Order: sequence, then C-alpha cells, then structure tokens
Amino acid sequence: MSLVPSRLLLGPGPSNVPARVRAALAEPLLGHLDPAFLAIADEVQERLRRLFGTRNRLTIPLASTGSGGMEACFANLVEPGDVVLVGVAGVFGERIGESAARHGARVLRVETEWGRALDEERVAAAIERERPALVAIVHAETSTGVHQPLARIARAARAVDALLVVDCVTSLGGLPVQLDEWGADAAYSATQKCLSCPPGLSPASFSERALARVARRQRPVSSWYFDLGLLAGYYGQQRVYHHTAPVGMVVALAEALRGIEEEGIEARVARHAQAAERLLEGLAPLGFEPLVPAGERLPMLSAVRLPERVLRAGEAVVRRRLLERHGIEVGGGLGKLAGSIWRIGLMGTNANPEIVDRLLGALQEELNAL
Amino acid sequence: MSLVPSRLLLGPGPSNVPARVRAALAEPLLGHLDPAFLAIADEVQERLRRLFGTRNRLTIPLASTGSGGMEACFANLVEPGDVVLVGVAGVFGERIGESAARHGARVLRVETEWGRALDEERVAAAIERERPALVAIVHAETSTGVHQPLARIARAARAVDALLVVDCVTSLGGLPVQLDEWGADAAYSATQKCLSCPPGLSPASFSERALARVARRQRPVSSWYFDLGLLAGYYGQQRVYHHTAPVGMVVALAEALRGIEEEGIEARVARHAQAAERLLEGLAPLGFEPLVPAGERLPMLSAVRLPERVLRAGEAVVRRRLLERHGIEVGGGLGKLAGSIWRIGLMGTNANPEIVDRLLGALQEELNAL
Repeated sequence: MSLVPSRLLLGPGPSNVPARVRAALAEPLLGHLDPAFLAIADEVQERLRRLFGTRNRLTIPLASTGSGGMEACFANLVEPGDVVLVGVAGVFGERIGESAARHGARVLRVETEWGRALDEERVAAAIERERPALVAIVHAETSTGVHQPLARIARAARAVDALLVVDCVTSLGGLPVQLDEWGADAAYSATQKCLSCPPGLSPASFSERALARVARRQRPVSSWYFDLGLLAGYYGQQRVYHHTAPVGMVVALAEALRGIEEEGIEARVARHAQAAERLLEGLAPLGFEPLVPAGERLPMLSAVRLPERVLRAGEAVVRRRLLERHGIEVGGGLGKLAGSIWRIGLMGTNANPEIVDRLLGALQEELNAL
Repeated sequence: MSLVPSRLLLGPGPSNVPARVRAALAEPLLGHLDPAFLAIADEVQERLRRLFGTRNRLTIPLASTGSGGMEACFANLVEPGDVVLVGVAGVFGERIGESAARHGARVLRVETEWGRALDEERVAAAIERERPALVAIVHAETSTGVHQPLARIARAARAVDALLVVDCVTSLGGLPVQLDEWGADAAYSATQKCLSCPPGLSPASFSERALARVARRQRPVSSWYFDLGLLAGYYGQQRVYHHTAPVGMVVALAEALRGIEEEGIEARVARHAQAAERLLEGLAPLGFEPLVPAGERLPMLSAVRLPERVLRAGEAVVRRRLLERHGIEVGGGLGKLAGSIWRIGLMGTNANPEIVDRLLGALQEELNAL
C-alpha cells in the first residue's frame, strides 16, 4: 500500500530519487557516534570534496535544506558592518542580500535583468571599486534558469582579499563545480536537485581562509546550530557531540554519491546538457520559448515563456492538469516571473530522453485539450 | 544487501525506527507544493498539536534537528538586552543559555546539581524577583535523565508576563506534554527520540502570544532560515515558498504519528514507565545505581552510575563491546558526567520488556567476561 501518489518531479526540485537511494533510506538506523556511521560520514565528506572540486577539510552535509546552507555561510562569515557585494539576478541572489543584511552586513548589489547572467566585467569592476569583505554569487539561479560564469569574478574577489561565497544549490552534480580552481571560500548546495536525494541536507564547503576569518570574529556567531567551529568539532578528528546528525539522510546521501561517481561527473554533466537540448527542441514547436539566451542557460533547469493559449487558460490550471492527469510536476515562476514562465527541471536521474518525451507527450495532450 | 550493520539503539537517541516508518521513508518523493504533500503536512500539524497538547496554529516540523528547534525559539523570541532566565540542570540547559546569549540576551541562570530536578519554588522566586522577558526550561534533561516539573514555574512566568519556552526534545511522545495547560509559549522537540523517526526534523510549537512578541520586534530575526514569520507563510493558508520542506521526512513523521495515535498517548506513556522500571530493577543486581532519585527520573532515559568493575575496565571499552559483540548501543555521559555514568534510552518502539531483557542479558555476559 502506497502512502503517496507517484509523481514525476520535473520542477525546480525536489527531483525523483533512484531506487538504490530509497532503499538506503529504509535501512536500519545507526547512532550518530557509531564507528560504522562515522566511516560513512567520512566517506560522504571525501565524495563531496571531489564533487565540489576542493580539498577543503570542512566539507560536510549540514543538517538543513539548502537555505540553511546559505544561512551557515552568512552567519559565520559576516560581522556587523562588513561590506558584502552580492550579484542579484533572481530570487536566490535577493535572498543572499537579505540574509547578509540580517547578519549586519552593508549590502551592495550588482543587479541584472531576470533571465540574464550578470556581466562578469561589471561585477569585477564593482569589486575593485568597493573592496568588499565578501562577494556572494549564485552559480545556478533557480528562479530564472541562468548559469552564471564565475572565473573572472573570483579573480577580482581574490585580488581585493574578499571571501567568495558561491550558491551551488542547483548546480552541484549537474554542472562542473571547481571551488579550488575558482578560488571560492565557501559554497552550499542541497540534496534534492542534481544529487537525487530527498531534501533535508545541505552539502557545504569552507576553505581554511574562511575558517581563519571565522576564528578572527569579534563576536560569536549568533547561530549556535550553524556555528562552524562547533560543526568542525563533530566532523573533525575529535567527534565532539554537537547536534544529532541526520544519520539516515547521510547514509542515503552516501549511496547517491556512490551512484554519481559510478556514472562519472563528466558523463553526468553531459547527460544533463543533452536532456535540456532535447527538451527545448521539443518545446519550441509547442510555443514555449526559452527565457534565457543561448549560452547562459542552465542544463538542469529550463525557464520557458508560455504560449498564449496556456496563459489564456491560466498557467496554474495547466500545471494542475499535468499533475493530476499525468502525475507530472513542473514548476511555476517565482517572484516577478510568477505567472509568466515555467521552470522545468531535468535533474539527476530525470535528465534522460525518455523522461523528456513523457513530458512532451503529456504537454501536447493538454495543449490539444485547451 | 545491507549498507549498514543492524543496531539496537539504546542510547539517548536516535532510537530504532519501526518498519512502517522505514517503509514510508522509501516511498516515492512528492513536491513540497504538491496538494498531496500539503495535505500530509496539515495532518502532521494537527497530530503534533494533539501530542504537544496545544491549539497553537504554528505547530510545525522545522527542517532541522532538535538543536535547530532551540535556535528557532531563541532567534525569534529574544532581542538584544532581553533578560532570559534559564533553568540549568545539565548540558541542554547550558546550551539554552549559550543560544540566548548569542542572540543578545542577558542570561540569568538558576542552577542545580546535575542529576537533580530544579526546585520549582526556587525558580519561581527567581522569576518573581527578576521579572525576565523569557523563561526557558528543559522538560527532560537528556544529559542527566531528569524529569523537570513545570506547572509552578509556568504560573510564575505567566504572572510576570514572561514567555515560557520548554525543551521537549526527549519528552515528546514518551511523557505527557500539555503546552496549553502549562501556559507554555514555545516548545521544541526532535523526531529521533520517542517519536521513532530518524533525526532531521524538529517538531515545534508557538503560541499567539509568542508570535505577537515576534511581530513587535525592533529588528528583524537574524536567522532567515528559522524566521517564524516566513515559516508561518509556508505552513499557513498562503503556502508561500520559503525553504524546500524535507518532504520525505515529513511523510515518515506522519506515519510515525499515526502509529502513536493508534497506540494512544496514555498507553505509550505507561509503556515507557514500565520499561524503565524493569530496566532499573534488572540493573540493580549488576551494580548499576540510578543517578537520579526516585520521583525525578525520566522514563525514556535512565542515567546510571557504573559499577567499579566497569570503571576499572574502562566504561568506553565495555560500551564498545556491547556495540561490537551484541549490536547494542548505550550512551556515555555528557559534559561533567562523561566517564562516570551511562545513559540508557528505552524510547518509542524500544520501550518494551523484550528489549530490556536483551540488554540485561548482553550486559551480564560482558560483566562476567571482565
């Protein structure tokens, strides 16, 4: 007997979870200080380091969703009065600005039109001019489907000795992430997007430079829960009890990461790119146009403008029909794009041609019925 | 093929998860805005209200472990300069003091010997004298196994118009919790103790009085992740996207709460009490003496002083043998009790005589081998 209906999750996340990860979730529980669990936690850290492209010691699954990962970064790395420069190209850039401000930062925003990437030269110039303590940028803007280039911004941040924080919530596992090559000091992600796990953990990574900044703080981190010093005590050699790690979720994440490495990250990135291409090719004749210009699009999340007949019928009505009649979830727009776009995610296991064709078939059927 | 060894979890939590809840964890995932999921989220809220003994509208599973629930309370309910009176009878009372201080509170502590309950009259007198803005108390002190009476303290808090926050991490589901009858304004718990779920969610409840206090804040809550105003937007009528709810965990919690109501909370409380009694009776002839005097003991977590032969062999060595040879985890002491006590949890499904006898048998065997 199933407790819930079966859904194909093609929104901005959560995405579907493969059978092996679901089986891992149903495994018996271990204690959070059990040597058998600590070995799995170590394995997760090592696999996350490879996925984040980093040697950062403190690379861990935070016991929260991705938004908690954001909070962990700004609660630890910002002190009142710090200048924080944020690239804002959508909802998740906005959120960063809000989070940093709540921790006392003086926030400077470099903005762009929603649906476009930020011009790296413009951001770099602002960094050179303002010399912020910290620069924050969203690698994959989930509200607009934009892929933000980072290399030039990262160099500019390093040149003025600013910390660089990168939101990799939607990119990790579907796009190359290279924290050390970029010179990023902190990054956070989430398990329910391209990692094919349920939501509830935020993989995050912090450089020694970031930890040195935390050690130099004038006042303690306001958050006890996300205090990196305390978290490092549990995830380090000493295994000092801090919180009760979400053991079941961490065991499931280990299994998901094993699957990712078996496939290989390059093959996985290519698979996401191919699926997105097939999707946009199939959507064009149905009247769905990409919001984002070619070259700036995310592979795992396509934002598309809606055809007139969908707008007339009410976009939420059509999404509801996809859900109820076909068991397919796609995402609506967020913030100022609500009502005018859809966000279609092909993340993790869902980035494959059969899934694309299933969606296109269902969509064709619903459009015919309008 | 099992990914992890099978363990009987008789420490301070996590405890074992029944088959029906493990099966729920392996269910296919729903989206966090799917009507099918929102119905389950509503059901969880309603069942949590009954378990917390409250009609509080904002009674929700926070997307964190229990420590995050603590953080949510003090991040929202404390403003810099507020006087917060904390009852400290162990590690978790200490933590509250630290969390409140990090959010700017002037913290007053009423302390007692570890292993004893706080004298309610003494706490009440301190409340009347100091007139704090907020009183915080731990219902079930997980570091000492003490059951803290609350009714008198709650009346004193109400008399001076202080908010009352109660840590129910270990008590919920194993002891009667009656927030409305007590007059408590906020409470937080965790899923991995007497609720028989994996760790990763913190059920929490906030009174209208608490929410009014949040609405009157001079400055925004530093935590975006735990901001009650934003959380109320998602869990209320509007369903405004905030974070991605840990859908799989919430579905599992729903199943666990169904099981609890099928058993009935009174029967469940009685079962915990009986199991604890059997445990202490069985431990006495082996030389384990309760740390806590009769009348102040928790049923779901027994703290016991160790016999000389266990101390001589090294208590961690004996615990390790229980784990490796018998697959049984018991907890060591925490803080100043480390090395001198064990904490034995009989929580949720583990509160039953067969489990007690299995532990006693294994322990007898290991003691004989010393």
